[in-house]
Amino acid sequence: MTIDHRAIRWNGWGWTAHKDQLAENDLFWSWLATELGMPALLATPARPLESITIPTSRLPAEHRARFVALLGAERVRDDAYERAYHALGRSYHDLIRLRTGDLSTVPDAVLLPRTSDEVQATLAVCGECGIAAVPYGGGTSVVGALTADPGRFKSVVTISLSEMDRVIDIDAQSMTATFEAGILGPALEKALQAKGLTLGHHPQSFEFSTLGGWIAHRGAGQGSNRYGRAEDWLVGAKVITPRGVLQTGGFPASATGPRLNDLVLGSEGVLGIITEATVRLHALPAASDYRGYLFKDFASGVAAIRSAMINGIDVTMLRLSDSIETKFYRTFGALGKKRTVRDRISQLYLDSRGFDEKSCALIAGFEGESSAVKEARHRFDVLTKKLGALALGESQGKRWKEGRFHGPYLRDPMMDRGVGVDTLETAISWSKLDTLYITVRDAIEAAIRETAPRAGARGLVSCHISHSYTDGASLYFTYIFPRALDGELAQWRTIKRAASDAIVKNGGTISHHHGIGEDHLPWMAVEKGSLGIDILRAVKMALDPKGILNPGKLIPL
Amino acid sequence: MTIDHRAIRWNGWGWTAHKDQLAENDLFWSWLATELGMPALLATPARPLESITIPTSRLPAEHRARFVALLGAERVRDDAYERAYHALGRSYHDLIRLRTGDLSTVPDAVLLPRTSDEVQATLAVCGECGIAAVPYGGGTSVVGALTADPGRFKSVVTISLSEMDRVIDIDAQSMTATFEAGILGPALEKALQAKGLTLGHHPQSFEFSTLGGWIAHRGAGQGSNRYGRAEDWLVGAKVITPRGVLQTGGFPASATGPRLNDLVLGSEGVLGIITEATVRLHALPAASDYRGYLFKDFASGVAAIRSAMINGIDVTMLRLSDSIETKFYRTFGALGKKRTVRDRISQLYLDSRGFDEKSCALIAGFEGESSAVKEARHRFDVLTKKLGALALGESQGKRWKEGRFHGPYLRDPMMDRGVGVDTLETAISWSKLDTLYITVRDAIEAAIRETAPRAGARGLVSCHISHSYTDGASLYFTYIFPRALDGELAQWRTIKRAASDAIVKNGGTISHHHGIGEDHLPWMAVEKGSLGIDILRAVKMALDPKGILNPGKLIPL
Repeated sequence: MTIDHRAIRWNGWGWTAHKDQLAENDLFWSWLATELGMPALLATPARPLESITIPTSRLPAEHRARFVALLGAERVRDDAYERAYHALGRSYHDLIRLRTGDLSTVPDAVLLPRTSDEVQATLAVCGECGIAAVPYGGGTSVVGALTADPGRFKSVVTISLSEMDRVIDIDAQSMTATFEAGILGPALEKALQAKGLTLGHHPQSFEFSTLGGWIAHRGAGQGSNRYGRAEDWLVGAKVITPRGVLQTGGFPASATGPRLNDLVLGSEGVLGIITEATVRLHALPAASDYRGYLFKDFASGVAAIRSAMINGIDVTMLRLSDSIETKFYRTFGALGKKRTVRDRISQLYLDSRGFDEKSCALIAGFEGESSAVKEARHRFDVLTKKLGALALGESQGKRWKEGRFHGPYLRDPMMDRGVGVDTLETAISWSKLDTLYITVRDAIEAAIRETAPRAGARGLVSCHISHSYTDGASLYFTYIFPRALDGELAQWRTIKRAASDAIVKNGGTISHHHGIGEDHLPWMAVEKGSLGIDILRAVKMALDPKGILNPGKLIPL
Repeated sequence: MTIDHRAIRWNGWGWTAHKDQLAENDLFWSWLATELGMPALLATPARPLESITIPTSRLPAEHRARFVALLGAERVRDDAYERAYHALGRSYHDLIRLRTGDLSTVPDAVLLPRTSDEVQATLAVCGECGIAAVPYGGGTSVVGALTADPGRFKSVVTISLSEMDRVIDIDAQSMTATFEAGILGPALEKALQAKGLTLGHHPQSFEFSTLGGWIAHRGAGQGSNRYGRAEDWLVGAKVITPRGVLQTGGFPASATGPRLNDLVLGSEGVLGIITEATVRLHALPAASDYRGYLFKDFASGVAAIRSAMINGIDVTMLRLSDSIETKFYRTFGALGKKRTVRDRISQLYLDSRGFDEKSCALIAGFEGESSAVKEARHRFDVLTKKLGALALGESQGKRWKEGRFHGPYLRDPMMDRGVGVDTLETAISWSKLDTLYITVRDAIEAAIRETAPRAGARGLVSCHISHSYTDGASLYFTYIFPRALDGELAQWRTIKRAASDAIVKNGGTISHHHGIGEDHLPWMAVEKGSLGIDILRAVKMALDPKGILNPGKLIPL
């Protein structure tokens, strides 16, 4: 295994050793309490693993013995830590269960195959013995794609790809590389960057997520404008299914009927286990320029992104915060700092230029050859100026880059103080984006007020656009709310339902890059249609007729 | 109907009124005879329709009456011309059958529904009565995707989308538009260009092919570098299946499991009938610059294309002819023209610079904003110069643009003279491209010699690259050969098999943009794998359980 799991929080985000900057910042917590309409924040620490009773493994001894015979004893894990670690993903829904010690869905064993053949043999044992199997990459799903649910079977194992992280081939001539699917982001980039190459796929989970996971949930990295989404960079995949090996794709382009890569992309471990993948590469960019802009309102920021897309400006990332998110980060950055004369002059200047509380910050990233980066930035500067925006320079971009993977860490200290924080995302065409933004934001705000633990309590609902296309963009909502401690799951469900119903009613997709898992399952049929679901069920039946793979995810029964 | 079918050749390519420049050029024919190692070319005219006995329609009167009740008498066609016109596509394989009067596979009726509901009702009648249905767009398939094959049914109808060609919506804000799928290329572009927009999808069949057809065979237009392939510009589709309506996609991007657009793309009428589609648009380019370059050999031309792709140069098209194709076009252009002093000086200059018979011509196209076109052209100029290429100026580009849809017309006059001409295409990664190019070319040459009507006769096998990607490119072979008139189908099959076997053995895809139809069916299982075929069969069963749709195409039984 590449990472010792004990170095990673089993019931929270990231490195155990990560220091919470927030935890000690009392000013932040009192500010947050006021914002949420709460008199004070409660201490709500997570239960330590030692105090939790984990259900005894249901795996019969003879089944366990078969796995041991196949993989060796050290690759059949059923100690408490490994089982708890693999019990769930890292969604808000998962987190409230993990923190309260609800380990009703833990795998009966965690298996660590080292080759595709071993994965195939493992699945064969599962099939013969009637054991459900949950494929596991980095474990960072935020939509409940990893719940160790036995479905209609008596036991369930997690099949972790963590020992399958080899570099198989780097074809610098074709600008492609083949890896085992369990490779983590940093190891993959290290191997490529040593040869002057990059995949450039940097989701917020980059440090802890795997190539196979990126494909299985059809992900998008922060630089998707330049580097593409998983469906753009996937050349081909090797997928182990209960019915055998499926090798898809392998060509720069093809017209040989439906593209089967696209059934693997987004398959979420339900159709098979991705064990190898070939991906498209880029040259490591010679230049990188990330910088901030301030728009007078959300609409003019949206107009800038749309214009950049339609005019083909070579951007790597455009990330527009709405006014709430802009204010949140500004307050967050200023807390406990003395206001200098310079700050006051800046503020006066902004006021005089009409940048009020509706202002929205945008981070733009440009990567590539130096001259191309310069040209793209120049074109974007001209465009933003026309729209009345202010160029804020590189410091904002630098700050964003430094913290690009830190966002999820904010969740744990909030959870320790009776505060919930969740995110959800969608994508929609430009002509419907404004309505969707307002409707979903209002739906989340109303649902938080409705479920708040006391009258007058409220949420902090913010949004940003982080991925854009010629025909539309994503909307990513972050909402912070006072938890209803006597009914947390119900509260989460109410908010989630309100937001998701608003999304599908207004023409948005139920997920832009998080995926479906368990959490979005109720909206799958609305989006795919009943024939669409029939198709997915037919494919499932063709590849996994006994239904052992990842029960309860992706495909509604 | 947008086009009167009588204005289009029922047994050849394009407008009946199109004047064959070649037909009168005796110099060309004697040159060609020599090239093919034939003492003379034979007159082999096609049989006129009037001399061909078309099998009586097998459609029982009561079935016909049901279609008439549904669609009206004028939209149930069974006259000889319409049946013959819709009997087959326009592949070489189709053509030899049509020209010799083999109309054993003609539809028993041609149906012309005008709405999605009518398509659905028509399919319901087919299902109830046990009638096979062949969906028909523009009829330009070159892989046998339109053969009116009843399969295991007693009769077969063609369902033509030619009356479903309406513009449903143009959303200029989102840069998308929705059309009925039967709209032809010119009508689609006219509607868009009136608003300053374009889809930019220009296959060689542009004048006669439809939006639905482009999607159904997963096509690529000549400007695919800028405008993308069908899978890049398809936002969503409405597909009528025997089990109901399937509406796919509809978002700029999504992570809601497998993307069902990709089952529609390449579905070739086997899974359903595409009746509407929403597509991504571009602004009509302000500038367009097409020009020629001459490389000393194929390898340096390939290097230029690869470098342009990897460095992200904003090209619309790069089309590199190999030395045989380059020589063919040069000879073709010079035939019967007097060599001027200027020509001789040009030749001396080329000789002195080392441009010999290995030289390869490349046409580069740049479209977009004027400054972007200038910049891209400059970058490409620098790159080609480094690789020892000669810039030939705009006249070559202009000539290519003028003739961009004329290529297929060359086939008919050749067919009239005992000469066969067929094309096939593949795509492959850069590192394997050289080997594939040589192996396939040699395989075709050998198969032509083997099947030639006399000893010493040979083929003219040329190749070009017309579509390129960061990880590889397409190879498009054109081969001209003396026909074995006493066994034409066997000859075609031998050549096709030799080329296709060489393609799959050397890592190429069996089709880059033509599709599968009947012609590539024997290689589908090699490319998709047996589980891949199982998946396609499962999807087929989910959507068309009786198997009435387009029997014998795409999915091996």
